[in-house]
Amino acid sequence: MTAENFRTIWLKADDPSVVQIIDQRLLPHEYTVHDLCTWQDADTAIADMYVRGAPLIGATAAWGLYLAALSDPTPAGIRAAADALLQSRPTAVNLRWAIERILRLVESSDDDLVRRIQADAQAICDEDVEISRGIGNHGVVLLEEIARRKPGETINVLTHCNAGSLATINYGTATAPIYFAQQRGIDIHVWVDETRPRNQGSQLTAWELSASGIPHTLVVDNAGGHLMQHGMVDIVFTGTDRTTRCGDVANKIGTYLKALAAHDNRIPFYVALPSTTIDWHSRDGVAEIPIEERDPEEVSHIYGISKGKPVRVRTTAHDTPISNYAFDVTPARLVTGLITERGICEASEEGLLSLFPEMRDV
Amino acid sequence: MTAENFRTIWLKADDPSVVQIIDQRLLPHEYTVHDLCTWQDADTAIADMYVRGAPLIGATAAWGLYLAALSDPTPAGIRAAADALLQSRPTAVNLRWAIERILRLVESSDDDLVRRIQADAQAICDEDVEISRGIGNHGVVLLEEIARRKPGETINVLTHCNAGSLATINYGTATAPIYFAQQRGIDIHVWVDETRPRNQGSQLTAWELSASGIPHTLVVDNAGGHLMQHGMVDIVFTGTDRTTRCGDVANKIGTYLKALAAHDNRIPFYVALPSTTIDWHSRDGVAEIPIEERDPEEVSHIYGISKGKPVRVRTTAHDTPISNYAFDVTPARLVTGLITERGICEASEEGLLSLFPEMRDV
Repeated sequence: MTAENFRTIWLKADDPSVVQIIDQRLLPHEYTVHDLCTWQDADTAIADMYVRGAPLIGATAAWGLYLAALSDPTPAGIRAAADALLQSRPTAVNLRWAIERILRLVESSDDDLVRRIQADAQAICDEDVEISRGIGNHGVVLLEEIARRKPGETINVLTHCNAGSLATINYGTATAPIYFAQQRGIDIHVWVDETRPRNQGSQLTAWELSASGIPHTLVVDNAGGHLMQHGMVDIVFTGTDRTTRCGDVANKIGTYLKALAAHDNRIPFYVALPSTTIDWHSRDGVAEIPIEERDPEEVSHIYGISKGKPVRVRTTAHDTPISNYAFDVTPARLVTGLITERGICEASEEGLLSLFPEMRDV
Repeated sequence: MTAENFRTIWLKADDPSVVQIIDQRLLPHEYTVHDLCTWQDADTAIADMYVRGAPLIGATAAWGLYLAALSDPTPAGIRAAADALLQSRPTAVNLRWAIERILRLVESSDDDLVRRIQADAQAICDEDVEISRGIGNHGVVLLEEIARRKPGETINVLTHCNAGSLATINYGTATAPIYFAQQRGIDIHVWVDETRPRNQGSQLTAWELSASGIPHTLVVDNAGGHLMQHGMVDIVFTGTDRTTRCGDVANKIGTYLKALAAHDNRIPFYVALPSTTIDWHSRDGVAEIPIEERDPEEVSHIYGISKGKPVRVRTTAHDTPISNYAFDVTPARLVTGLITERGICEASEEGLLSLFPEMRDV
C-alpha cells in the first residue's frame, strides 16, 4: 500500500475520458477497479461510498468536475455539476474545498478549460500525497519518542475507522506516521477498531495494513477503553472529516468515545489532518458541524462471505427502528495535538494559527 | 415479555427430567425452545451462550446440578458437575454463587437430594423474579423524577447489551425500571446499543422491548457519545456481571466508554444489579476481575437472514488477527448509583454496606 506508485484514484491509462477508482465497498473480499465515465458516476461513487475519506472525497469531486467539463465544457454546465456534487456528502469540508478550487478555474474562463481542470484535479491528488508525506514525517517523531522511552518493546497504536491510504491518495493521514515508522524499523502494532456500522476498520484498515505487512489486531469498537485501561495502547491516531478553527474534530462516529478513554488513561490522542479539512469559519464543533444521518440499512444489514460467495444479510429483526449517525465531534480539550502537513500543534485556535498564520484574519 | 408468567428457564411441564430454555443465539430470527437433558447440556448452554446474563447463567447452573443429581445423586457426582460448571464462564460471579448454594444442600446430605435441589433451583428462579421486581420498584423512582422535571416530554434511556428479561428470569435488571415506568404510564423511549460482537442489543434487547411494546431505537455502539452530547439521553441504565465491594462494575465490553460519555455530559449513569452479582471479596475491579477472552469468530462472523434463511457470514478477511475481550470494568467514580433489590446506593463500599450491613465483616 505504501508503494510509491499506489493511488486510490487515477485517469485510465489508455482512455482519458474515464477516471478509475477502487470500489471500496467490496473490500476486503474483492479488489475491483470501477470506471467513472460521467460526473453523475462520481456523485454516486461519493454518496454511496465507493470512495470515502475526506481527502479522497475531495479528489473524486475534482475529477467529477473534469468529467462534467468533458461532456459540457460551459461554465454553466460545470457549475450545475458542482452544485450537485456539493450535496453528495454533508460533513467532509474538503469536498467543498476541492469543488471551489476547480470553480475558480472556471471563473477565470479559458478556452482550454477541460485540460486546465484535468491538470488541477491531478494537482489536487499529487498535493495530497505530499500532504500525507508531511503528516507522516511530523507524526513519526511521536512514535520515535515512544520507541526511545521503551526500547525493545512494541509500540501499540490504536486507530478508528480508516484514515489510511484508502481514505487519501496514498499513505493516509493517521496511518502515514505508522507507515513511516515501519520504514524506519520501529517495532509497531496497530489495534484496528471494527468501526460500525460500515466496518471501515475491519474491512479497509485491516486490509491495507495487511497488504503493507504491518502487525495489527482487529477489535470491536467497544474494546478500546479496556485496552487503554490495561496499558495496551501507547498512542491513538485518528483522522478527521472536519476540524474547527478552535480544534474541535468531527470524525467517524465513536471517535469521541475513544478520546474520552485516552484522556481518562492519560494516553496521547492525536488527530492527523491535511489543512484542507480545517473549517476556518466554524468554532464550536458540537454546535456547528452538521452530522450526516445515513441509511438505517447500514446498521441492519452487513456484507460478508458465506461458502466463498458474497452475501448481504440482515442481522436485526425486520421492523427494528434504527438511527444511523455517521460522525461525532471530539472537543479540542480531549485532543493532545493535531498533526498537519506543516507540523504538530495544540488543538486550539492559537495552535492552528501558529502553523497557519495566513488564516488569522479569515 | 413482562407477562407475569414469562420465564427464561423452566422445568418441562410433562417431563421433570428435562429443563427448557430459549436458545437465545437464534433470536430475533427464530424463537426456539431448547431441551437440557444432562448437566453437560447445561454446561454447553452456558459456555456457548444459548443463555447469557449473569442471573440466568446462575439459574442455569443450578438447574444443571439438578440434572446432574438426576443421573448421579451422589455428592461426588454432583460435585464433579459443579466443578465443571464453574468453568463454563469466568466473569459472572453469581455462577459461583448459585453453584455454592446448591452444594450447601449437598453437604447437608439428605436422602431426597434430587427433590431438594429441584426445589432450590426453582427457588433461585423465583427469588430472581422478586429481585428484578425490587430493582424495578427502586429504579422507576429515578424515571418518575425525570418525568416530573420534563412534563409532557419523552424520557430517553440508553442501555448497553441485554440486561433485560432474557438475561434474568423475568423483568431484567436494567430494564425492570423501564417496564415498570411503562406500566405507570410514563412516556419512555430506549436507545439500544447494538453491542458488538454478539449483538445482544440489536438481537435481544430490541426483540424484548418490541415484544413489550416499548418504543426504542437501535444505534451502533459508537453512537452513544454523540447522543449524549446532543441532549438525547436522560439517563443510562446497564446491568453488570460482577460488582466489587467498592462499586467497580464489570459489564459487557464498551460499558466503560458509555460511562465516560455520561460523566462528560453530566448524565446519570446507573447500574442495576441483584446483590448476587456483588463480589464482596474484590475491591479494585480493573486489577482484580478476570476478563474473559472469547472466540475471534464472534468478531469475524455474523449471523443473519438472507432471502428468508439464516446464514452465517464472515465479514473480515480470512486471515485478520482478532482479539475478543468480552467485558470491561467501569470504575465506581463514573457510576452515579447502584440499583439493587434493597434500594439505590452510591457506588462505593460505604454505599453498598449501607444496604447490606451484614456484609461488613465479610
